[in-house]
Amino acid sequence: MTRKIGVIGMGHVGSTVAHYIVANGFTDDLVLIDKNEDKVNSDALDFQDAMPNLPFHTNIYVNDYSALGDADVIISAVGNIDLIKQTDGKDRFVELSNNVEAVKSISAKIKSSGFNGILDVITNPVDVITSIYQKETGLPKEKVIGTGTLLDSARMKRAVAAKLNIDSRSVDGYNLGEHGNSQFTAWSTVKVFGEPITNLVKENNLNLDTLDKDARDGGFEVFKGKFYTNYGVATAAVKLANAIISDSKSQLVVSNYRKEYGVYLSYPAIVGKNGIEKQINLNLTKEELEKLQYSADFINQKFEENK
Amino acid sequence: MTRKIGVIGMGHVGSTVAHYIVANGFTDDLVLIDKNEDKVNSDALDFQDAMPNLPFHTNIYVNDYSALGDADVIISAVGNIDLIKQTDGKDRFVELSNNVEAVKSISAKIKSSGFNGILDVITNPVDVITSIYQKETGLPKEKVIGTGTLLDSARMKRAVAAKLNIDSRSVDGYNLGEHGNSQFTAWSTVKVFGEPITNLVKENNLNLDTLDKDARDGGFEVFKGKFYTNYGVATAAVKLANAIISDSKSQLVVSNYRKEYGVYLSYPAIVGKNGIEKQINLNLTKEELEKLQYSADFINQKFEENK
Amino acid sequence: MTRKIGVIGMGHVGSTVAHYIVANGFTDDLVLIDKNEDKVNSDALDFQDAMPNLPFHTNIYVNDYSALGDADVIISAVGNIDLIKQTDGKDRFVELSNNVEAVKSISAKIKSSGFNGILDVITNPVDVITSIYQKETGLPKEKVIGTGTLLDSARMKRAVAAKLNIDSRSVDGYNLGEHGNSQFTAWSTVKVFGEPITNLVKENNLNLDTLDKDARDGGFEVFKGKFYTNYGVATAAVKLANAIISDSKSQLVVSNYRKEYGVYLSYPAIVGKNGIEKQINLNLTKEELEKLQYSADFINQKFEENK
Amino acid sequence: MTRKIGVIGMGHVGSTVAHYIVANGFTDDLVLIDKNEDKVNSDALDFQDAMPNLPFHTNIYVNDYSALGDADVIISAVGNIDLIKQTDGKDRFVELSNNVEAVKSISAKIKSSGFNGILDVITNPVDVITSIYQKETGLPKEKVIGTGTLLDSARMKRAVAAKLNIDSRSVDGYNLGEHGNSQFTAWSTVKVFGEPITNLVKENNLNLDTLDKDARDGGFEVFKGKFYTNYGVATAAVKLANAIISDSKSQLVVSNYRKEYGVYLSYPAIVGKNGIEKQINLNLTKEELEKLQYSADFINQKFEENK
Repeated sequence: MTRKIGVIGMGHVGSTVAHYIVANGFTDDLVLIDKNEDKVNSDALDFQDAMPNLPFHTNIYVNDYSALGDADVIISAVGNIDLIKQTDGKDRFVELSNNVEAVKSISAKIKSSGFNGILDVITNPVDVITSIYQKETGLPKEKVIGTGTLLDSARMKRAVAAKLNIDSRSVDGYNLGEHGNSQFTAWSTVKVFGEPITNLVKENNLNLDTLDKDARDGGFEVFKGKFYTNYGVATAAVKLANAIISDSKSQLVVSNYRKEYGVYLSYPAIVGKNGIEKQINLNLTKEELEKLQYSADFINQKFEENK
Repeated sequence: MTRKIGVIGMGHVGSTVAHYIVANGFTDDLVLIDKNEDKVNSDALDFQDAMPNLPFHTNIYVNDYSALGDADVIISAVGNIDLIKQTDGKDRFVELSNNVEAVKSISAKIKSSGFNGILDVITNPVDVITSIYQKETGLPKEKVIGTGTLLDSARMKRAVAAKLNIDSRSVDGYNLGEHGNSQFTAWSTVKVFGEPITNLVKENNLNLDTLDKDARDGGFEVFKGKFYTNYGVATAAVKLANAIISDSKSQLVVSNYRKEYGVYLSYPAIVGKNGIEKQINLNLTKEELEKLQYSADFINQKFEENK
Repeated sequence: MTRKIGVIGMGHVGSTVAHYIVANGFTDDLVLIDKNEDKVNSDALDFQDAMPNLPFHTNIYVNDYSALGDADVIISAVGNIDLIKQTDGKDRFVELSNNVEAVKSISAKIKSSGFNGILDVITNPVDVITSIYQKETGLPKEKVIGTGTLLDSARMKRAVAAKLNIDSRSVDGYNLGEHGNSQFTAWSTVKVFGEPITNLVKENNLNLDTLDKDARDGGFEVFKGKFYTNYGVATAAVKLANAIISDSKSQLVVSNYRKEYGVYLSYPAIVGKNGIEKQINLNLTKEELEKLQYSADFINQKFEENK
Repeated sequence: MTRKIGVIGMGHVGSTVAHYIVANGFTDDLVLIDKNEDKVNSDALDFQDAMPNLPFHTNIYVNDYSALGDADVIISAVGNIDLIKQTDGKDRFVELSNNVEAVKSISAKIKSSGFNGILDVITNPVDVITSIYQKETGLPKEKVIGTGTLLDSARMKRAVAAKLNIDSRSVDGYNLGEHGNSQFTAWSTVKVFGEPITNLVKENNLNLDTLDKDARDGGFEVFKGKFYTNYGVATAAVKLANAIISDSKSQLVVSNYRKEYGVYLSYPAIVGKNGIEKQINLNLTKEELEKLQYSADFINQKFEENK
C-alpha cells in the first residue's frame, strides 16, 4: 500500500513539515488541511512547482478530511502564533483555549473520516492538547502521541554538543515532562564521551543548570528572532512519523500517556506502527522524580481546566 | 575538500533554501547572512535544533562574509517582500531600486572576501539583478547565474502535467526570457508523450495560451495565498547549486548572459563547476524569437535605468 | 499503509536491488526470496548489520511467499548467471529455458499468495519472461512490466553524454524493442541541446551507429569485466518500482504489452499504481518501425517456442 | 570545493562502497582503483549506466593514483577473498601476508600522490593493516583510521535489538578491541530502554555471552551464506567517511591508535575532518580491561610479525 500522511494546520510549522516530507519523498499521499484555504492552496501549488525539480513524487490533496480515513499518520500543527507573540513566545499556554476549540472541532472531523492510524501532535501546549485529541477522537491512548520534548531533548543535545565541540548526535539523553516551562533535563540519562555527563562536569567546566536553561529556553531564543519556531519541531515531528510508518520500534522521547501520572507527558517509549509499542522506565534520581511529578501536576491541572 | 554554500538573505526564500540544504546534507559548510541578525541567528539555531534528529551534519556560520571566500556557490535570496505585497505580487520590479542598493553593497563584500565561485541569484527582478551582481562583483559572466525561468518552466510543467494527468517530470521544455511578465513558454520546445505538445493540442483539448498564462501567473497564484513564494524557487535554486558543485554539466534553463541580446535572460545552458559551461541554441519559431527579443529589450531597458 | 516490496532472486542483481532499497528507505517491508536459503539469509543479515548505521529502518522477511500477498511491487531478479557466462554475456536467451521453468514455479506461488500488485520483471530474456509471468500469474497485462530498455536507454544516454561532455540526464530519448540484440536506439526520439540529435551529427562529429552499438553492447562491456551486470539494471528496476508505489504517472520506457505487436516489448508508457496507466505512440520513422517490427517478431517467436 | 573520495579495491566490498556513495550523491568526485582493470572499468561503466536514472551526479575516475592527491578520504577495500574462503571465513589473518604486500605497494603510490586527507581502512585484518598503512604512508596517526568494530558494534546492536524487538538504532554501546576473534562486547557500555543492559538481563531473559558471540560471529554467519560480507561493512565505512568529510565530530567506535596499548584497536573516538579529533576514555570494568589488553597484545604481536 502507499504511505499516506495528513498535516492539519499549514502555518509556519505545518508547511515546513509538509515541505520536509515532499522534498524527501517520505510519503506517497499527502493530505494538507487548513481553515485558511488560500494559504493551503498556495502551499500545495508551491510544492507542485517544486516537484519537477525534485527526485520524488508526492500526490497532494487539499482540505479533504475524508481523505484522512486511511492515513497512516496525521500530524497536527494547528496553532495561533499571534497569541504566542503577545507573550514574546514565553508562554505556550496562551494558545490553549483557542487551540482546544480548534482541536475539538478537528477531532470530530478526524473521527468521521474513520481514521484509525496514529496522531502525531505538535499543537501547543502539546501535552494538554494531546490529551484532548485522545479524549475527543476516542482513539486508544497509545495511538495519540505528542512530539513533546523530542524537540527539547534535541535542544539540550545542541547545547551540550556546542559546549563540548562534538556532533549533537553524539549526545544521548532526555528532557522529560512538559514541553513547556516545567520540563527539565534528566541529567542522569545524559551520556557523552561514553560516560554519564555528571562525571564530566568538572573536567569540562560544564554548568548543567545553564545547559538545562539553554534547552528549556531554546524555543524562546529561536522565537525571539523570527516570532515562530519551525525547523527543529518539524524535524522532530517527521522523525516520529517515519518511525511509525516504517514500524521501526525506535526509542523516542515523546509525549505519551503515563498511567502512574495520569497524564500525557514526555518520557521515552518504543514507537512503531501501533504508536506507543512499549513504555519504558528510567532509573531517575529522587530530584528528577520530583521534578517530573511537578511537571505532571502542572499538565494535569491545565488539562482538568480545559478538557 | 568540503562543499561550502553561502546563502545571503534569510527571508522566506533564503531560509527555505537553507533548510532544504541542511535537511538533505547537500553541503558541509553553510554560511548564512542577513542584515537582520536576530532572524539569521534564530534560523541558525533552529537548524541546529533539527540536527540531532537528522542523518546529516552541517557546519553553520552566521554573518561572516569572510567565510564566503572559498565557497563553491553563493545563493542570493535578498529581497523585500513588503514592497512586492504593495503590488499584490504582480510586479517584481517594485523591488528593483531597493534591491539594487542592497546588491551593490553585498557585491562589495563578496568581492572583498576573495570569492571566486559561482553566484546563484534568486533576488528579483532576477535578470536585472544578476547583471548588476556580475558588474559589481567583477566575476566573469559565466560565473553569475540567475535561477530565472527554471521556476517558471517548472510551473509550466506542473500546469501541463495536471491537464494531462502525468508526472510533471515527464514534461520537457522551457519558459524563456525574463523571469517576469514578459516571459513566455516556448511551446516549440515542449514535449510530452514523446511528441511536440503542439501536435497534441486537439487530441487532448489543450489551450496553450491558458497554460502559458498559468505558468507565468503561477507565482502570483502562490503569492495570493501567502504573500510570498518559497518552495518552488528554493528547489530550483538548490538544483542549480547542486549541478554546479557536482560539476554535472546538466542542461538547465537559467538566466545567463546572452551576447546576441546583450543581457541576462533565461535560456537553457550546460551548467557545471565553472558556471555556464556551454550555451546552446534552440530552433525557436519566428514568433518565439520576437517574444524573446521583446523580453530582452525589456530587461535591457530596466538594467540601463538601474545599473 | 506501509510500502511493501518483494524481491525474488538474490543473485548479483536482486541483492543490489535490495541494498539500494534498504540504503534509501524506499520501502517499509521488504520480502526477500531465493531458493538458496543460505544466500538470502546471509544478505538479510548483512542488511540488518547495516541498519544501525543507516538513517532508515526496513522490516525484512525471508522466503515467505505468503508475505507477498499485499505487496505493492514484486521485483523478479531470478536468473542463472552461469548460463550467460558460457556465451560471454552475449546471448540473454541461453538463460531462457532454465528461467521459464523457474518463472512458472514462482508464478504459481505468487498467485497463491493473492498478490494483486505490480510485477517489475528484470529476469532475462526480459520481454519473453514478462509475457510468461503475465500468462502464468493471470495478472492483467498492465500489471506486469519488464524493465526492458529502461537500462539500454540509460546506456545510450551515457554514451551520448560522454561524447558531448554533458550530464547523461540531459539526454532524452529511447532505445526500443527487445532488451537484447534486436533492440535499437530510436534516434528520432533523442534530443540533446534542445534539438533532435540527428541535427547535431555533423557539428559534433557524432557517429550514431557507433553510439547505437555502444548502448546495445553496453551490457556486454560491463559483463566482460565482472561476468555480471548489476548497478545499472538495479537502479532502473527501483526507479520503476518507485514510480508505481508513489503513483507518479511517470513516462518510462519499459517492456509493456503492445497490442499492435502482440508481444511485450519496450516502448514508453505512463507508469503509476495500476502499472501501465497509459500507452503512448511515438512518431517513429519508417526505418525505426521496421526495426521495431523485426524486434517484435523475434520476441514473439521466442515466446511461442517457450510459453 | 568539491568532495572527493577514493576507493581502492573493487571487490565485493569496494564496489558496494562505491555504489552506496554513487546512489546517494555522497561525493562529487569518486576515484576507483583496482589491479583488475577489467573489473574496475566494468563497475565504473555500470555506475554510469545507473546515473541517468539517479538524482545525483558523480564524476568517476578510474585507476588514476595521481587523482588521489586532493581527495578528502581514501577508503581501502583491498583484500583477497579467496584466501578467506579457505578458512570458511573464520580467520581474517589468513589474508595478512598477502594484504601487507598489497598495502605497502599502495601506500607508496598514495604517498606519491601527495595525499593529505584521511585513510578509511576496511582491509583485513584491519587493525594490523591500519598500522601498516600509517607506517608506510607516513601520515599522522590520527589521519589513518580503520572501520574496526563499527561493524561488530552494529552486529551486537542487531542481535540485542532482535532479542528485545526494538530498532537496532535504539541500542547504544560498543564492541572493542580487534575486529577479529579477540574482540568483545563491552557490556558496561551497552544501554537499552534507558538503562545499562546488565540491569535488564533477568527481566528480559538475556544471555549476554550468546549475544556477544552473535556479534563476534556475525561476520562468519554472513560469510557462510555467500562467501563474503559487504553491506554491513560498506555502510560502516561510508558512515565514517561522511563524518570526516562533513567534519561532524561524531563519536564512532573505530580502529584508532591508542598510545597506552601501542597499537591500533577499536575504541570510540570523536571523528572529524582531521580524522581522530579526540580520543575518549571509557570506564571499563576490570574484566573488560583485561579482554582489551589481551586483544591489544594479539594485534601487537601480529603487527610486529608483519610490519
